[in-house]
Amino acid sequence: MPTISKKGQLMPQSPIRKLVPFAEQAVKEGKSIYYLNIGQPDIKTPEIALQAVKDSNIDVLAYSRSEGSEIYRQKISAYYKKHDIHVAHDDIIVTTGGSEALLFAFGSIMDVDDEIIIPEPFYANYNGFSTASGVNVVPVISKIEDNFALPPIEEFEKLITPKTKAILICNPGNPTGYLYSKEEIQKLAAIVKKHDLFLIADEVYREFAYDGNTHYSVMQAEGLDDYAIMIDSVSKRYSMCGARIGCLVSKNKSVIQTALKFAQARLSPPTLAQIASEAALETPQSYFDDVIEEYVDRRNILIAELQKIDGVKVAKPKGAFYCIAELPVKNSDDFAQWLLEDFAVDGETIMVAPAGGFYSTPGVGLNQIRIAYVLKKESLIKAVNILKEALKVYKD
Amino acid sequence: MPTISKKGQLMPQSPIRKLVPFAEQAVKEGKSIYYLNIGQPDIKTPEIALQAVKDSNIDVLAYSRSEGSEIYRQKISAYYKKHDIHVAHDDIIVTTGGSEALLFAFGSIMDVDDEIIIPEPFYANYNGFSTASGVNVVPVISKIEDNFALPPIEEFEKLITPKTKAILICNPGNPTGYLYSKEEIQKLAAIVKKHDLFLIADEVYREFAYDGNTHYSVMQAEGLDDYAIMIDSVSKRYSMCGARIGCLVSKNKSVIQTALKFAQARLSPPTLAQIASEAALETPQSYFDDVIEEYVDRRNILIAELQKIDGVKVAKPKGAFYCIAELPVKNSDDFAQWLLEDFAVDGETIMVAPAGGFYSTPGVGLNQIRIAYVLKKESLIKAVNILKEALKVYKD
Repeated sequence: MPTISKKGQLMPQSPIRKLVPFAEQAVKEGKSIYYLNIGQPDIKTPEIALQAVKDSNIDVLAYSRSEGSEIYRQKISAYYKKHDIHVAHDDIIVTTGGSEALLFAFGSIMDVDDEIIIPEPFYANYNGFSTASGVNVVPVISKIEDNFALPPIEEFEKLITPKTKAILICNPGNPTGYLYSKEEIQKLAAIVKKHDLFLIADEVYREFAYDGNTHYSVMQAEGLDDYAIMIDSVSKRYSMCGARIGCLVSKNKSVIQTALKFAQARLSPPTLAQIASEAALETPQSYFDDVIEEYVDRRNILIAELQKIDGVKVAKPKGAFYCIAELPVKNSDDFAQWLLEDFAVDGETIMVAPAGGFYSTPGVGLNQIRIAYVLKKESLIKAVNILKEALKVYKD
Repeated sequence: MPTISKKGQLMPQSPIRKLVPFAEQAVKEGKSIYYLNIGQPDIKTPEIALQAVKDSNIDVLAYSRSEGSEIYRQKISAYYKKHDIHVAHDDIIVTTGGSEALLFAFGSIMDVDDEIIIPEPFYANYNGFSTASGVNVVPVISKIEDNFALPPIEEFEKLITPKTKAILICNPGNPTGYLYSKEEIQKLAAIVKKHDLFLIADEVYREFAYDGNTHYSVMQAEGLDDYAIMIDSVSKRYSMCGARIGCLVSKNKSVIQTALKFAQARLSPPTLAQIASEAALETPQSYFDDVIEEYVDRRNILIAELQKIDGVKVAKPKGAFYCIAELPVKNSDDFAQWLLEDFAVDGETIMVAPAGGFYSTPGVGLNQIRIAYVLKKESLIKAVNILKEALKVYKD
């Protein structure tokens, strides 16, 4: 029998996927589950985006241009301008979600055995894209005590080798909720310029910046045109994760020309979703104001409730809709499974994401979980209560 | 300045892409162009598919499952059953077009420097996916004199090394239009079993089999369950190239489990397009009957007209909607550019795909072009007349 590849064997499983059978079994047994484990918002998609698809007048559902339609890229450029990010439409390649933008970026700038430095904990699929690209992740640990702020820049510098090609950040961060300051971005800018590295910033949560903080993009940093690659997506911004539309943005022409070759090989991003995404750009500011207000309320309640639990430590997120909580347990994988298999309060339990999968360093984060606050406030309160009761009786 | 990757430098440009600026310039200068260069059919998408999207009742455009929705995969399984292909829904992973299915297959079974044998001429993007995966294409030349039939199986056997992991075919073939017979597939089945290789078959043109021939799938070959990987797509079948929905099919559980990890990393195929694709499965047989009749008519006229031109040699396609023509020119890249830049009949010219890009062996196919017969009959007749007139005056 032919065998699968080493790369395929090394591809990581989603940290949540292992729990899915246990969740399905729990539901079969009649339990209700509060899903705190995934970043699928319950927020409604802007009506204008969905309506545009219904109003579209298509005879032949044809390919779009590989780099995305001209008019859509022009409108994206205008959207960025409102955020004080100045890029032309031909600095933009429309991709099938932020995921594909990351794959194109990795392929365009890194070869097998090259290294990418990423502050951990980080979005687990960065591991998957790295493995798929044959690239090695070199983690820098950021700490819950510091709210997962940027680690000292010397820690990055120590890790740079001739194989290092890029630093990757997620800002605001999944799973940390940390929003990098202008000063932190400038420190990263200085180090990538000094060592001739790319700085890739996953900014898909741009709008989700709280407490009066303003998001500062890598595309705004001075003198970074040749170094910065921005990853973006409509998924979270407009609660349209299923559209699968994102983009790769860079003012480095070689990066764009190279990424375009990867884009041409796969022909085109999805046409229907581009129609929805183009229309979504007309979403009024009031939509975002309401959504941000809702998330801030949820975050405040979630953090306040978590802080009431003995032995639980929690970082205060300044953006996105995740937080990392440290629990008085040895292994949150086991705990998360136990919650689904053996625990309930009035027939209800919770599904959480064990945080080990968000770290690249083995053994780190095993007592942490990620909570996505994508549920209504009342549900969050009930969910945290279940966590509290569970920790009273759980023994590991 | 940081540099792009070796892989990125090696990524091939689409063979057509180089011509695009010349086509755009020709249009600016007022010329009309018959586009024979791309496989974007002019056939209407089934109304039932487009209507399903309009009728959908979505509040939150959410992720689907990474492997595609359960119900859609069940319906795909039922579709295959009608074609005498017996696979369960969990032998199927829904992908973002056939392109992503190929990338998942390559990643699941091949590591860097592994080899894949492909009869050439082949779909040019196989080169791109191979480069992106760090895999080396080993071509076997098939010949226009044989209508691009399967080369003698000994030719494959000669090329197998310890690094060979798979044989890849496109059936019916783009760009050849050749439809492999049951006997040819069985020869390939025997050789992959003998040498423990995978047999990947790109069967996206399954329905486009002409002259009473029946398509024979790798999934129908005896004893091939562990070896066969089928690539499929809705793009050509329902003239919905812009949907970006395809699938990877295999009864080899390790392949499916591995491909699923790649699928999880990118989260989900596009949700709106899955709705359209699921509905497209209800397309009545009469749609296909009409489409096939139309393509057969177009093919017959195209081939008859081409055969009238002195010095032109053409393979007779038995499927898909492409044909390769050999021209009395030295370099079809130059000829194709000249057609756009310097030639017209009554203000009209043609855009063709130079066939060099469909070969991996350097220097082969330089006097060939690929013609996609995706235009109406009257247009095809005019287009071939332009080719005839052009060949009278072209000097290389």
